[in-house]
Amino acid sequence: MYTAPVLVAGEWRQAAECGRFQPFNPSTRAAIDRYFPVSSWRDCDDALECAVQAAAQLKQLPAETRAAFLELYANKIEGAADELCEIANEETGLPIEPRLLNVELPRTTNQLRQAAAAARSGSWSQATLDTAANIRTLRAPIGPVIVFGPNNFPFAFNGVAGGDFAAAIAAGNPVIAKAHSAHPHTCQKLANLAHAAALEAGLPAAAVQMLYGTAREDGLRLVSDPRTGASAFTGSQNAGLALKRAADEAGNPIYLELSSINPIVILEGALKQRGFSLAEEFASSCLMGTGQFCTNPGLVILPAGESADTFVDRCTALFNEAPVGTLLNKGTEDNLKRAARQLCDAGAERLTAENTQDPDRCCQPNTLLMAKGQQFLQNPHGFQTEAFGNTALIVTSQGTEETRKILESLEGNLTGCIYSAEDGEECGEDDAVYTQLEPVLRNKVGRLLNDKMPTGVAVSPAMNHGGPYPASGHPGFTAVGIPASMQRFSKLECYDNVRAHRLPALLLDRNPGKAWRLIDGEWTQGDVTPL
Amino acid sequence: MYTAPVLVAGEWRQAAECGRFQPFNPSTRAAIDRYFPVSSWRDCDDALECAVQAAAQLKQLPAETRAAFLELYANKIEGAADELCEIANEETGLPIEPRLLNVELPRTTNQLRQAAAAARSGSWSQATLDTAANIRTLRAPIGPVIVFGPNNFPFAFNGVAGGDFAAAIAAGNPVIAKAHSAHPHTCQKLANLAHAAALEAGLPAAAVQMLYGTAREDGLRLVSDPRTGASAFTGSQNAGLALKRAADEAGNPIYLELSSINPIVILEGALKQRGFSLAEEFASSCLMGTGQFCTNPGLVILPAGESADTFVDRCTALFNEAPVGTLLNKGTEDNLKRAARQLCDAGAERLTAENTQDPDRCCQPNTLLMAKGQQFLQNPHGFQTEAFGNTALIVTSQGTEETRKILESLEGNLTGCIYSAEDGEECGEDDAVYTQLEPVLRNKVGRLLNDKMPTGVAVSPAMNHGGPYPASGHPGFTAVGIPASMQRFSKLECYDNVRAHRLPALLLDRNPGKAWRLIDGEWTQGDVTPL
Repeated sequence: MYTAPVLVAGEWRQAAECGRFQPFNPSTRAAIDRYFPVSSWRDCDDALECAVQAAAQLKQLPAETRAAFLELYANKIEGAADELCEIANEETGLPIEPRLLNVELPRTTNQLRQAAAAARSGSWSQATLDTAANIRTLRAPIGPVIVFGPNNFPFAFNGVAGGDFAAAIAAGNPVIAKAHSAHPHTCQKLANLAHAAALEAGLPAAAVQMLYGTAREDGLRLVSDPRTGASAFTGSQNAGLALKRAADEAGNPIYLELSSINPIVILEGALKQRGFSLAEEFASSCLMGTGQFCTNPGLVILPAGESADTFVDRCTALFNEAPVGTLLNKGTEDNLKRAARQLCDAGAERLTAENTQDPDRCCQPNTLLMAKGQQFLQNPHGFQTEAFGNTALIVTSQGTEETRKILESLEGNLTGCIYSAEDGEECGEDDAVYTQLEPVLRNKVGRLLNDKMPTGVAVSPAMNHGGPYPASGHPGFTAVGIPASMQRFSKLECYDNVRAHRLPALLLDRNPGKAWRLIDGEWTQGDVTPL
Repeated sequence: MYTAPVLVAGEWRQAAECGRFQPFNPSTRAAIDRYFPVSSWRDCDDALECAVQAAAQLKQLPAETRAAFLELYANKIEGAADELCEIANEETGLPIEPRLLNVELPRTTNQLRQAAAAARSGSWSQATLDTAANIRTLRAPIGPVIVFGPNNFPFAFNGVAGGDFAAAIAAGNPVIAKAHSAHPHTCQKLANLAHAAALEAGLPAAAVQMLYGTAREDGLRLVSDPRTGASAFTGSQNAGLALKRAADEAGNPIYLELSSINPIVILEGALKQRGFSLAEEFASSCLMGTGQFCTNPGLVILPAGESADTFVDRCTALFNEAPVGTLLNKGTEDNLKRAARQLCDAGAERLTAENTQDPDRCCQPNTLLMAKGQQFLQNPHGFQTEAFGNTALIVTSQGTEETRKILESLEGNLTGCIYSAEDGEECGEDDAVYTQLEPVLRNKVGRLLNDKMPTGVAVSPAMNHGGPYPASGHPGFTAVGIPASMQRFSKLECYDNVRAHRLPALLLDRNPGKAWRLIDGEWTQGDVTPL
């Protein structure tokens, strides 16, 4: 029985395995005829040892090497697009078109290229010079980064190709990726391209390493090992918080991107003005990708009344009519069904039909639930159960004060949105309510939206894909958006009175390129001005 | 028996006390006839509740209010300078002149004024605008900040007046300060001035609160309370790591500035060229303030040989001749004596005389210890015991490879320094060794120095007073240096498609002042340029 090799120590080699697993096709519920190893600690230990060496080598290489690698890798991904999409489709059930081929793959190569440009420019380092005191500081690589990718983005958040990977490498760190067990073949294919690109670009071969799986205790050991610089995890709260505990105890930074229900507040005026189109907007956003996004709108809060009834009826019809997407895997399916049950147990009413079961694939009927604000307030934790997938909860509120209390009871989320009326009389009324609710919602979310569903997460320097705990592990960092996301994988390195020929190029009087630097309190792309 | 009141809920009031304590004069070993309360959870709970309200109020007030408060407070401290210095001198034994009056107090008011300027300018928020996508993000206040000040800077790092306080307030957060139990009267006096300044400037009265002491479990509860935004602690490793564990578990950011032995490496050429003057420089830096600085040089590594012998002899003489300073308190004295004993037990040889005991005050003879590199490498953890005070360890190495191994075995430190030869033949030789050692030392320290003792920590935008664990809790943040230190007390707040009239002023197209903002990839003090 052939088991796939791991990418450790700069080469594909047989794993020091303590087990193996098969992926699974969620569209057929059939096991896929491939075997992937669960690595023992020996593989982890070797990977860490080689990553430490790679980190030292990377520090001696110009940023251009990393930039060239990231661009070569992006090219190779595009060259293998069809094959990658087929494999990912088999393992995740996500449609090839448009999702994988036209949306997620271009997002992935775009991220790699943005990261390349950021590495090349050097502005991300925020070089800060105090020329009078001759103290100079920059953000420098933090050391080997362990990346755990999630199940829902086989390319764009993949541990060996996604946003965390691109940010960590661009900031000058080697990566040890942990493939997601639901799409190991996709990961293997990507890692293969990354490895080839690394060799071609002259990156240390061990700058990119990948394991498919480890025992739980070895995962904890990886993030807490003293050789580890930092870790990044995207996925479930349980797994993420266990890793956080281990990393924290060891004093190693770890960045998490966990669950979020992304509350949407629709104000009275907006509901009256455009309830019908908002229902379309909401249903389409909620069911897109079978609802399997971190920023999927899982909770809608709106004022009870006639307009709300119309909105709810329309949403129910749309949920019932929409095709039922395939879920990523058995685990997602089980968790989603359990979450929907828990919400019903808490008292939510099921609005959508319960039929349309399809035993041959992983799925659940599009599910819309409803509860009253009062119910929510009696059990806010229960009603915030994340239903990751094509399920949402609508809560009707008896007024602004009740809505405020509901928002006050929310846990940390990635996003939150308020829809309000456009021009006209309703606008003024909604504005007054907005002013009361915004400060409460603002405190609970990383990204606050107006009149827009949160599902799209633009790869923008101004993006914040993070938020208050437990949506993330620290509200000062973002997982998406270059160069901001690179800061997670950096540490402050200060040079005090260090002789000029020993300084990193970015700290010299003469700017080695076009990096933005903060010199004596002024941001400039220029050199230190002679007195 | 009169017990001092606590500053809670915007007023001085009797504590809900569960105990009381007296400070102590280290210069006489006599208790000071004043009583300070240990607060029960009720005081903590009230303080948190009021801080949450103050945080909401602060967000509505212009930055100018915080700036005015910080400046008023600085003025009041200057106005009360003589009294403050007398009280601090009584509680800490630190000399009034030059230390308290001419160095530490001006540093404190300077920090407050720099923080005021930073709050006013707004550049610290790093407002980032993506005008095409209409996504706008800034660093916003994180919420109530708990500040635990250390024993060794009664003004400049005081929980209610020092760097953390100034940074947290300037970033828009209310502070709950925990007075240090060794100088509660100093804290009371400062808090009194802060309270008066807050009322005068129109800051919410509960933006500045202070407790003198809590039960251990209430301290842990404070940093982990969901109402807490972040905490900052400067002090001993034991206390700091206990707080970190509690805060981490709750998902609350906490910033630590813990122990550090600040290794100094002197290369062969430098030792030959200027060993004599280096001995003076080292002894003076090490004994300054009776060695009670986080950045005190506690470990010197130098190549064994004749030049080393001369250096060591000279240092020994200087240590024996120098006056013996008073230590901060009984705890510092006990810890220092224990640490020196532990270092001797590990095998270090005591070079300095053991006499000059002075039973009437807290002190220890200036103590210089010595060990061979080989000994150090056999017990690196033992030889890294921090001796906080007028004690240092010299380690002689048998060559560059041994020095490299010693550096490799070091834990995280705030600073590290390499002295090398100036112009001449030795310079080239030292440079070659520097190149081998620097990457190792660089990884172990937050601030790397050349030819300069680390004791001075300039309040500069380029300063890094932080470092790898366990010198701090996260190597990406600094506790000194404005505006960088303010980032610890901020979170990312992103506005996506938010209507212009609802945006914070710093995110509008028009720059409300002179804040540096990152607009579409360019740092500018200007407005968004119309297309």
